[in-house]
Amino acid sequence: MSETKTYSFNKSLELFRRAGKVIPQGIYGHMTPALVVPGSYPYYAVRGQGCRYWDVDGNEFIDYMCGYGPMVLGYGHPKVEEAVAAQKAKGNCFNHPSERMVELAELLVDTIPMADWAVFAKNGSDMTTWATQVAREYTQRKKIVMVKGTYHGAHAWCTPGHGGIIDEDRIHIHSFTWNRADQLEDLVNQYKGQIAGVIMTPYHHPTFGDSVLPAPGFWNKVQQICNREGIVLIIDDVRAGWRLDIRGSHEYFGFTPDLVTFCKAMGNTYPISATVGKKELMNAASKVFLTGSYWNSAVPMAAAIATIKALKEEAGVQKMMEMGKLLCDGLIERGKAYGYEIIASGPYTIPFYRFGIEDDFYRQQVWCSEVTKRGSFFHPHHNWFISAAHDKKDIAMTLDHAEAAFKVVKAQFGD
Amino acid sequence: MSETKTYSFNKSLELFRRAGKVIPQGIYGHMTPALVVPGSYPYYAVRGQGCRYWDVDGNEFIDYMCGYGPMVLGYGHPKVEEAVAAQKAKGNCFNHPSERMVELAELLVDTIPMADWAVFAKNGSDMTTWATQVAREYTQRKKIVMVKGTYHGAHAWCTPGHGGIIDEDRIHIHSFTWNRADQLEDLVNQYKGQIAGVIMTPYHHPTFGDSVLPAPGFWNKVQQICNREGIVLIIDDVRAGWRLDIRGSHEYFGFTPDLVTFCKAMGNTYPISATVGKKELMNAASKVFLTGSYWNSAVPMAAAIATIKALKEEAGVQKMMEMGKLLCDGLIERGKAYGYEIIASGPYTIPFYRFGIEDDFYRQQVWCSEVTKRGSFFHPHHNWFISAAHDKKDIAMTLDHAEAAFKVVKAQFGD
Repeated sequence: MSETKTYSFNKSLELFRRAGKVIPQGIYGHMTPALVVPGSYPYYAVRGQGCRYWDVDGNEFIDYMCGYGPMVLGYGHPKVEEAVAAQKAKGNCFNHPSERMVELAELLVDTIPMADWAVFAKNGSDMTTWATQVAREYTQRKKIVMVKGTYHGAHAWCTPGHGGIIDEDRIHIHSFTWNRADQLEDLVNQYKGQIAGVIMTPYHHPTFGDSVLPAPGFWNKVQQICNREGIVLIIDDVRAGWRLDIRGSHEYFGFTPDLVTFCKAMGNTYPISATVGKKELMNAASKVFLTGSYWNSAVPMAAAIATIKALKEEAGVQKMMEMGKLLCDGLIERGKAYGYEIIASGPYTIPFYRFGIEDDFYRQQVWCSEVTKRGSFFHPHHNWFISAAHDKKDIAMTLDHAEAAFKVVKAQFGD
Repeated sequence: MSETKTYSFNKSLELFRRAGKVIPQGIYGHMTPALVVPGSYPYYAVRGQGCRYWDVDGNEFIDYMCGYGPMVLGYGHPKVEEAVAAQKAKGNCFNHPSERMVELAELLVDTIPMADWAVFAKNGSDMTTWATQVAREYTQRKKIVMVKGTYHGAHAWCTPGHGGIIDEDRIHIHSFTWNRADQLEDLVNQYKGQIAGVIMTPYHHPTFGDSVLPAPGFWNKVQQICNREGIVLIIDDVRAGWRLDIRGSHEYFGFTPDLVTFCKAMGNTYPISATVGKKELMNAASKVFLTGSYWNSAVPMAAAIATIKALKEEAGVQKMMEMGKLLCDGLIERGKAYGYEIIASGPYTIPFYRFGIEDDFYRQQVWCSEVTKRGSFFHPHHNWFISAAHDKKDIAMTLDHAEAAFKVVKAQFGD
């Protein structure tokens, strides 16, 4: 059992105070747990290696967020860094793309059975929004259907934020409940011939709530409806991509979408996202303008090629699944020893955990921050991410951190 | 006078044919001149150094597009690369931002007189769209006014493309003619109390057309109208930023906007964009959700800090202006010797050139491709970019390329 280390976050706090003067909110975007549980989490990171990173106060963490997904092979993975260095020695961002762009598109088409083509951008939102536009162009219809409570990015049609959004941004966005194909059927009947695309994640992974896997037959039914109605089925695999199946998460669940968007795990922290699609949509795709200042950049494409190859060579997904299962079984067992039922949901590689006894996250916040202060970064409200760099010793160390934190929760809440 | 080199583009063409099978259009986005003037331009780049780059066929070019703007100090600038290497040795993309984010925000606030705060993203569109949302949040109004024919990015409200766009995307977007403050006044009267923001570039730089500087008193009038009506004045300095004035292009023209977006020249090819704003807008800014998978990344922020410092230390803008003037004077003079009036528009650092004798770009296409095949990359329809790495010898060599190409145009068109 590990001793409690004396983790302090003074330098983080000092920097955050400076930031508050020159940056709205100090830190924006990713749900930094430090904003929710002040004093128990770092605000600023310094460096990383493998599955570990260090914050500005010198605290060391085994990372269970992986940069909210982008780190998939470990920070500073040798093969990715080698490919990056080789490309960087030549150059990155020019008037034209590099050979890497063609190679990466060919690699995606080879890797993902449904893919006949690929395009690249820098961010998840770039691609989820563009995919809905390709669906509109292909069908010459306006309406987009999504699942309630799903995060598809920060653009106006889908952002979870309310500021700066106007009603017209969502006038043609409709939603149904996850796993309720009957509700999708109702929408299709209500807006007959008007629905361009259905955009969904491969399984349901809301924030502040349990992940929900597809019910038996659900994907089959969704695909049937889309095919029957000429609706483009878009899978947002930004979060789950390459953590369930290197061929795309839809292969894991056994169905075939028309467009799939990727981002997080693509380049092992180098900035790149992609959409792949079926041949039928290639012409429509060529008509929806797509560009960005640095989108031809060669380095992130070299990183993505190396990442995909390394994931294949190292059987990365399988390894992540095994480590994720070790973590899951261990957390449930250690929790039980203290009388707590730990509810696990989602795949082992992108798990969401909470205390069965509560739905207000009070124990969860204490537990996660106590684990974090011992050296394993646990986010209290967001699903976690496992990487291929986590090994048995890391998981064992984390389970000890978790157990020590269960003890603190027990003492504090007395249940 | 330089001899005609034997520039061929066979490897570029071969790669482009491969690309066409797995990427819609083969190459998308940036208006690649190879798509307009086939056989006379490269499709793929390999490496760069200073103001030069090399394509996949081994052809060498003095670069007058600078990656469509991002290269501002020269490819592989020592101080930027040093800062990048130092940051990269630690790490890039984590669960949290790095100290670099706070330092960069402070540096922007110190550098740009109107700026009280800054936020960062990856792309121009990320920031122009977000800025319009901040204006909507601040004013609680819906309408956005822009100038006809202005490029503000690839998002639905402003993209020059037509595919995938629906009428509702632009239901609250209105536009007026550059330099016609009276038309802005008319819009303001027509939509009294409904206009949230006016978004404009610091001078007018359309594609396929002359750039137009602000008429005397124009900015003063626009600012007056915005102030009087409580409208947020947003400057899109994505293209011109740091090529007119390190304090923002509005300082060059002598007015004070409420929000300014930057991108291209920020990080000397490393992917980053920014919005800076006045204190009054900080609260509204904190309410408009802003995030992306790699937006906390430290390396591009380190690159941006080094780029801004180097531009200041090297008096980069002044040097670019001087080299741009040399180029401009030389092109006009060499053209005149062949009986051609060359029309120059826009600032010396972001010039647009065309033949006075035509408005169909036929001579322009021949001339630009003949210059390119001699070793100076000239885009026929888009404004060019000068960098601080261009020197007198480079400009002199380019003027020789230009003269040889004037001779070809003369022979071909006989006028």
